[in-house]
Amino acid sequence: MSALPAGRGRSRLIAVARGDAEPDTVIEGAQVFAAHTREWLSGDVAIADGMVAGIGSFEGGERIDARGRWVVPGFIDAHMHVESSKLTPAQFARAVLPHGTTAIVCDPHEVANVLGSDGVHWMLDASEGLPLSVFVMAPSCVPASAFESPRRELTVGDMEAILRRRRALGVAEMMNFPGVIAGDEDVLAKLEVRGASHADGHAPGVVGRALDAYAAAGIRSDHEATTAEEALEKRRRGMWVLLREASNARNLRDLLPLVREHGPGFCAFCTDDREPDMLLREGHINQMCRLAVEEGVAVEDVLVMATLHAAQAHRLDGHGAVAPGFRADLVVLEDLTSFQPSLVLARGRVAARAGVCEAFAVPATPAHVLGTVRSAPVRSEDLVLEADGDVRVIEIVPEQLITIARTVSPSRANGHVVADPSRDLAKIAVVERHHATGRVGRGLVTGFGLTRGAFASTVAHDAHNVVAVGADDASMLACCARLQELGGGCVVAVDGQITGELPLPVAGLLSDRPVEEVVERLDQLHAQLRELGVTIEAPFMTLSFLALSVIPALKITDRGLVDVDRFEIVPLAAG
Amino acid sequence: MSALPAGRGRSRLIAVARGDAEPDTVIEGAQVFAAHTREWLSGDVAIADGMVAGIGSFEGGERIDARGRWVVPGFIDAHMHVESSKLTPAQFARAVLPHGTTAIVCDPHEVANVLGSDGVHWMLDASEGLPLSVFVMAPSCVPASAFESPRRELTVGDMEAILRRRRALGVAEMMNFPGVIAGDEDVLAKLEVRGASHADGHAPGVVGRALDAYAAAGIRSDHEATTAEEALEKRRRGMWVLLREASNARNLRDLLPLVREHGPGFCAFCTDDREPDMLLREGHINQMCRLAVEEGVAVEDVLVMATLHAAQAHRLDGHGAVAPGFRADLVVLEDLTSFQPSLVLARGRVAARAGVCEAFAVPATPAHVLGTVRSAPVRSEDLVLEADGDVRVIEIVPEQLITIARTVSPSRANGHVVADPSRDLAKIAVVERHHATGRVGRGLVTGFGLTRGAFASTVAHDAHNVVAVGADDASMLACCARLQELGGGCVVAVDGQITGELPLPVAGLLSDRPVEEVVERLDQLHAQLRELGVTIEAPFMTLSFLALSVIPALKITDRGLVDVDRFEIVPLAAG
Repeated sequence: MSALPAGRGRSRLIAVARGDAEPDTVIEGAQVFAAHTREWLSGDVAIADGMVAGIGSFEGGERIDARGRWVVPGFIDAHMHVESSKLTPAQFARAVLPHGTTAIVCDPHEVANVLGSDGVHWMLDASEGLPLSVFVMAPSCVPASAFESPRRELTVGDMEAILRRRRALGVAEMMNFPGVIAGDEDVLAKLEVRGASHADGHAPGVVGRALDAYAAAGIRSDHEATTAEEALEKRRRGMWVLLREASNARNLRDLLPLVREHGPGFCAFCTDDREPDMLLREGHINQMCRLAVEEGVAVEDVLVMATLHAAQAHRLDGHGAVAPGFRADLVVLEDLTSFQPSLVLARGRVAARAGVCEAFAVPATPAHVLGTVRSAPVRSEDLVLEADGDVRVIEIVPEQLITIARTVSPSRANGHVVADPSRDLAKIAVVERHHATGRVGRGLVTGFGLTRGAFASTVAHDAHNVVAVGADDASMLACCARLQELGGGCVVAVDGQITGELPLPVAGLLSDRPVEEVVERLDQLHAQLRELGVTIEAPFMTLSFLALSVIPALKITDRGLVDVDRFEIVPLAAG
Repeated sequence: MSALPAGRGRSRLIAVARGDAEPDTVIEGAQVFAAHTREWLSGDVAIADGMVAGIGSFEGGERIDARGRWVVPGFIDAHMHVESSKLTPAQFARAVLPHGTTAIVCDPHEVANVLGSDGVHWMLDASEGLPLSVFVMAPSCVPASAFESPRRELTVGDMEAILRRRRALGVAEMMNFPGVIAGDEDVLAKLEVRGASHADGHAPGVVGRALDAYAAAGIRSDHEATTAEEALEKRRRGMWVLLREASNARNLRDLLPLVREHGPGFCAFCTDDREPDMLLREGHINQMCRLAVEEGVAVEDVLVMATLHAAQAHRLDGHGAVAPGFRADLVVLEDLTSFQPSLVLARGRVAARAGVCEAFAVPATPAHVLGTVRSAPVRSEDLVLEADGDVRVIEIVPEQLITIARTVSPSRANGHVVADPSRDLAKIAVVERHHATGRVGRGLVTGFGLTRGAFASTVAHDAHNVVAVGADDASMLACCARLQELGGGCVVAVDGQITGELPLPVAGLLSDRPVEEVVERLDQLHAQLRELGVTIEAPFMTLSFLALSVIPALKITDRGLVDVDRFEIVPLAAG
């Protein structure tokens, strides 16, 4: 994957490099990080046509005084999902460029669940020409399981078409690790899709012989290790270890012993899933740099993981270093501890100053990614729970994606199982929203602490149907109706009336508003939920994973309750 | 470049890895080098379908006892020309497999000069199915200069067609560094040829701003550095440093300070040009390992340069490590000092034992690569030298490729300039041999010490016309005539009679005989030349570079004497 034009398009760059033409821009007098030797070089950085021409002494061009400062390559996120930010690619770029991130490798499997391959193609279109370089992996696991109902299944053919496009690299995280390890032919076919340069992995907790089998399939990265020992096992097997620091999985600190003991080789940084508030309040890859340096890793080792190694893991030629012919994605740092850039250049142009993004042209949003909530109207009877005897209840575990499968004797009214706030038993419903099938999965959930009202979202991994939790049916119905009107988002209702909302009109997943506004809206929703008794930290994030049918133990989709350990649909009544 | 089938073709391998099928072969009880962590792991190496299934404890399969020994990945030569060995690909494989080399990345620009793109396609065909993995770069500089006469020019279109083939990787060493640095459009066009994953460099002594310009063109490797300082400059600019140890350029020892001071990152080993005697007597990449360890580099650093780093430099997925899903190219070592393998496996099969190659099927040699010496008959008058006053003389420099441009007052007979063994002045002629044009370049050479007779060869970089040196015209004519009959080779004549010969029937460059036989023949020729007064070490190698018009100072082609510094044809008479 050559990200840059080689050859003839570079004749002016070459002339600037050899001294026969004036550079566009010169960053003067900084200490410049040479990623390939891990040295700091003194000199000007000359830029022409969006690329680095050289490090040395250069006359002319626009001058940027960086004496006493450090210049490092722009940071690269080696694996992430833009959709977790709830931002369009343009707004995401605006959010992370001030933190020094100039390139990401994303797996757009959330929009793929809602929009099929059109969603992936839109992600490529919507990121065209941004100052942030957006590389895309072809989603390999849509749907996440047979129990989920996305708009449609993404086929090997869809992947092949995606991989014909510029900026499309390889096979996105192969989450179906049981299928790979079992040698499932259809799963292995996705790994050999034409046009893929490499395949990313996803093998949480997989070690030993199972990991041998997974790696033998040719998968060359993993971002799911939670301990240094697990990460070491993966690296020994020739896999890139993508050290993760996500909103819901803060693994970096636990993984750093691998780097301290075995060096930064075959290690790179990734964020996987970051909620908008984490982006706004803590930052992006620069937050990982800060933390790693705090934890005693050498600055030079941290920087190669944040830059060049991510480029190598994805074979991104011309990215991740400050050297002639590399893209002029550059970060000016005031210190090597906070990693808060005073200046960020992308393709040689100033992209952010002192934490504020420069304006750039934003591609228009096409109609086909809007209005994607197409559920049949939800009626009272759709929420009725009927079961004799004890019933299954999903128990949430604060700050984790797993749940516990409980059995309780429910409260009943008029012969129906009902929510009972006094026992922290709320109703949960998942409404199919892609084809208006009217399919509604129903159940009970405990652990939110909801005392009244309801909240709901169209962000519901991975199929992103409507998921609603409520203490009363009227509020749940109001939520579902409002999400239909909004075309998706997050809403709260009390006594059958909407009290707060965050519209997410793009695929029902993304806002086209700035991150500050999205966070403010989400904060308001969270404050309302706290008033309604909710005790956990990030209720909408927790809600969004209750429909993900591949993480234990008891989950719910539009097809009903899913016993993930037995991998089957189970009735409400506990047998 | 994925060298191996991913996905479905691997279902048996995956079953072996997870423990549900029996491996083909198990190497028991060795210390196994894990290249990605630079550790030594204890365990069996299980092999299935030519790939590594895992390292651990495995039952069944053919057992190879390696207790007390070391297992490392097969060695990879990151840049070389098979033609320098004077061996066909099959015979080259037979020569280097016992030394542990299991993969090479070659630039077949010598056969391309003789046979056009047909030569490159033949190199790919002739290496198909060998136990040695042969990867090919598309030659970028045929002819080497406008003063040379190959069969034809290799175009961007030829390169594009080559790069459609499996095992073809990228753009071979861009030797026209002045053209790149000057921004020559036709040269830059070759760097952007469709289908190339990367471009190799060749920038001898290029540093500073000129090197910035060369690197800015997107060239990502160099193998011409002769000092650690030069190599460091190149690595800082994002280029892979391919440390070279060639017959005519033993640079490794001088380059190792780079590795000792800055680590082995972005360093790999290459041999560039090795004569058959060096392969036979000293070895191949394993000789570089031996030398580097002697010079104090850590074994683990040496091994990554000899294996994984070469694979990374060329984006060869699944090569260069002992890990699940990597090709089972494996070397069993008795010690970590001599690097003389006791056993070599290629694609999981025993390829060599105790220095002896196992038999394998050799592709037949097609007629079109034979009979390529098509010069017009050389007549006495073609060798006549006419010039008034002082004349230019090529002075050879022992063991170097450069020459010195001398001016002398020549000896004359019958009004013609003549060879004069008493003054070590021999005649030299280059006869165009591709199109029977009858073009003969003529001149004088000093430094061989030839007292009588003549010697000649069809190995004459880069156009590989016939080059002959003689103390008398009759012996030179005999040599030229015999080379025509042989279809190429190296010959010696005395008193107009051939006294020794090494036939090189394939393109006039390669023998299809084993390396031992080729070396024996060459030894005989060298012994004869010593009897004829020749004092330098490798006269045929020296001879072969006298026609290379891009290395200073005075050279000769079929078009006449070339002043390389002024880059123009010059007459015999010194103006």
